[in-house]
Amino acid sequence: MGLNGDARGGDGRTERLVVIGGDAAGMSAASRARRLKGPGELEIVAFERGHFTSFSACGIPYWVGGEVDGRDRLIARTPEEHRQRGIDLRLRTEVTEIDPAGRRVHARDVDSGSGSWMPYDKLVLATGARPVRPDLPGADAPGVHGVQTLDDGQALLDTLARTRGRRAVVVGAGYIGVEMAEALIHRGFGVTVVDRGSEPMPTLDPDMGRMVHRAMEGLGITMVNDAEVTGILTGPQGRVRAVATTHAEYPADLVILGIGVRPETSLAREAGLPLGAHGGLLTDLAMRVRGHENIWAGGDCVEVLNLVSGQEQYVPLGTHANKHGQVIGTNAGGGYATFPGVVGTAVSKVCDLEIARTGLREKDARRVGLRYETVTIESTSRAGYYPGASPMTVKMLAERRTGRLLGVQIVGREGAAKRVDVAAVALTAGMTVEQMTALDLGYAPPFSPVWDPVLVAARKAAARVRAS
Amino acid sequence: MGLNGDARGGDGRTERLVVIGGDAAGMSAASRARRLKGPGELEIVAFERGHFTSFSACGIPYWVGGEVDGRDRLIARTPEEHRQRGIDLRLRTEVTEIDPAGRRVHARDVDSGSGSWMPYDKLVLATGARPVRPDLPGADAPGVHGVQTLDDGQALLDTLARTRGRRAVVVGAGYIGVEMAEALIHRGFGVTVVDRGSEPMPTLDPDMGRMVHRAMEGLGITMVNDAEVTGILTGPQGRVRAVATTHAEYPADLVILGIGVRPETSLAREAGLPLGAHGGLLTDLAMRVRGHENIWAGGDCVEVLNLVSGQEQYVPLGTHANKHGQVIGTNAGGGYATFPGVVGTAVSKVCDLEIARTGLREKDARRVGLRYETVTIESTSRAGYYPGASPMTVKMLAERRTGRLLGVQIVGREGAAKRVDVAAVALTAGMTVEQMTALDLGYAPPFSPVWDPVLVAARKAAARVRAS
Repeated sequence: MGLNGDARGGDGRTERLVVIGGDAAGMSAASRARRLKGPGELEIVAFERGHFTSFSACGIPYWVGGEVDGRDRLIARTPEEHRQRGIDLRLRTEVTEIDPAGRRVHARDVDSGSGSWMPYDKLVLATGARPVRPDLPGADAPGVHGVQTLDDGQALLDTLARTRGRRAVVVGAGYIGVEMAEALIHRGFGVTVVDRGSEPMPTLDPDMGRMVHRAMEGLGITMVNDAEVTGILTGPQGRVRAVATTHAEYPADLVILGIGVRPETSLAREAGLPLGAHGGLLTDLAMRVRGHENIWAGGDCVEVLNLVSGQEQYVPLGTHANKHGQVIGTNAGGGYATFPGVVGTAVSKVCDLEIARTGLREKDARRVGLRYETVTIESTSRAGYYPGASPMTVKMLAERRTGRLLGVQIVGREGAAKRVDVAAVALTAGMTVEQMTALDLGYAPPFSPVWDPVLVAARKAAARVRAS
Repeated sequence: MGLNGDARGGDGRTERLVVIGGDAAGMSAASRARRLKGPGELEIVAFERGHFTSFSACGIPYWVGGEVDGRDRLIARTPEEHRQRGIDLRLRTEVTEIDPAGRRVHARDVDSGSGSWMPYDKLVLATGARPVRPDLPGADAPGVHGVQTLDDGQALLDTLARTRGRRAVVVGAGYIGVEMAEALIHRGFGVTVVDRGSEPMPTLDPDMGRMVHRAMEGLGITMVNDAEVTGILTGPQGRVRAVATTHAEYPADLVILGIGVRPETSLAREAGLPLGAHGGLLTDLAMRVRGHENIWAGGDCVEVLNLVSGQEQYVPLGTHANKHGQVIGTNAGGGYATFPGVVGTAVSKVCDLEIARTGLREKDARRVGLRYETVTIESTSRAGYYPGASPMTVKMLAERRTGRLLGVQIVGREGAAKRVDVAAVALTAGMTVEQMTALDLGYAPPFSPVWDPVLVAARKAAARVRAS
């Protein structure tokens, strides 16, 4: 990201910035623009369809699991706080149409149904994502829940309180599915996770996902792989009673859908804005919608450039949404900032297991036609003799011949996940695994063996590349 | 580091590699060379003055403190294991002279006193460091201990078992002094630490060292700053009874000297090998002693290049010694590898406080004439709402105008120290703080706020640079 230029207005007229979507990307953009330009220079109107702003969707599993005490803890900034900062925030107001040629949006009050056009000078699309809902009978039955929004989380908690049965089926073994499975274990449910992949956590290669599989079983979760859901079966009163799959039928008092999200870009599509292969908006480095000088987009509704593969990718993560918001707000506020792209870093936690990845998996490398070497090493989180040292597995991919780092996956316990950040920086810098072997990483017995696990992997990968 | 070339011998004659010093650098070099060349091609003789090989000096405070159970846990590889791998290891044998022109060393049996010359084809100097001993009366009195070697550690434990008094004075508040102070608290001692600096942990700027000061006081350690030791006072039987300083006199049943180490290069000096301003051997990228084709040096007896300042520096750390050993062993074994330098990363732990630094401190930046901006931010180790989130302070230095990252210091609790690795990689890659703001670091509520503390610091530093 970069910021240059000045933040003062142009001809003295008050411009209007309209923001569609009141979550991380939208409200970060609005807040940042407001810091750069006062209300006399820039009017900021933000439309949000729901009841909340700026909440941490990533925290919902921990709220449901009882580790986080109450919904309000997940709200970074309330609507009232945004309004106090001079943002005209309109909750329960849905934008139903964008007219880029006329520079206006049509907004409708969700409750009254009344609507009107509002002109804009600058527009920010932060419409987020919508959960993938299986096109199956019963998918909307009572007892079937998504976990995208705070309203979803509250609805699920209400169901938990009401439901007497204690059998849950989670569809999808990505990080949200796995986190929700653990949350439901904490709530006293028997949990079955059904997934079409060969191992849980498809963000990892299957050989690493196998370790997550074992940890889930250790928690008492039943993991069903290679199974396609064929129907959600309902009983008396239309409530869910089971999930049918190509493998077997699983009784369920509660079903969680964790099969991912897609960019919410129907408005953008109707307005003729450019969408990519994954259905997300396409932007330039400054998060400006391609071909539209005065429209920006960020968060879960855009595609981003993967700096390792060189291809556009869909990565709906809160951390990117926040960065997008900063960049957009800076640019909409008269400065200049850029978001170069991602390297594909993601971390998560299943019980005491820490899971991390960055860069390309084997299948990503194959997809973009890269030839690679792969190594997997076992090490420990601390010096072997220091109390609490725990095992850690690091898998590393390097490009054949050049030795360029392509990706890292880590599964371990305390201290494992954030080690992936070293690889994320190395990927950003385009380092080779050979160069990585000389990295001056912190060493002290409570924190690392004398050769950090990432360095052990780099050494082995470098040897493999040399021999290739 | 890099490795190229092949590991096969030249003319078929068996060459002899002589290694002086049996700790991390020396034995890593010997082991690595042995992996590349078999005994038929390369004879390897290693001389070690003491009783042990390949031990973790960094672990001694934890052994003394009782967290690590027994000396043997600190030994990575025993003399017997080295011998089984085909290394002719000679313990209790001291090299007393190097004759580079004649390609031979003179070695003496420490116990019998008998000695002889041994020719070499290739020589590795890994003579390590010697503790700085204050030139004061009483510095060698019974009850005064250093903590460099396993023998030192054992002698200290013997003293702990014998000494009835429970008052300890630690001279020096660097990381070894502070770790030893904590170890002695665990052993039931009342501990006073005396240091000439304005705050403990001089590897940090004083504003960050102040936090360590508070944590030490929280443990019950008395920290005396700005005090010079003027004498070590002895009582009946010549045993230590107090430490006299410019500040006051502190009664002591036990004194630990933690005032640092100097390169052990007397042999090298006498042999006319090149030494730097800090008294360490000067080598090239391949860890070859400058001007000497067949002599390498590594570990605590060499100076290393600081990649940020561009100057030679003395950094006696086990992690570098291990890397040096790998590089030397590869080169002595007929391959090619390099050690480009360090960025000055160091991490340590005081009670539950994690302390980390990398790159330049303010005084380092001033010394090399760099103009810099500095920012300090407060953040948390996890999402604020996630249980166990703890405060973390990050200080960042960036070069004025260019925005190049110069250094990072972190003080926090769980999860703080290893975050410095991100900055270590960024320093190695020569990144600006602006570039760092876009780094794709891992985010999930159990591991980080949505803006990682390092990114928060980078954002603030980038803003400061832009405004400068």
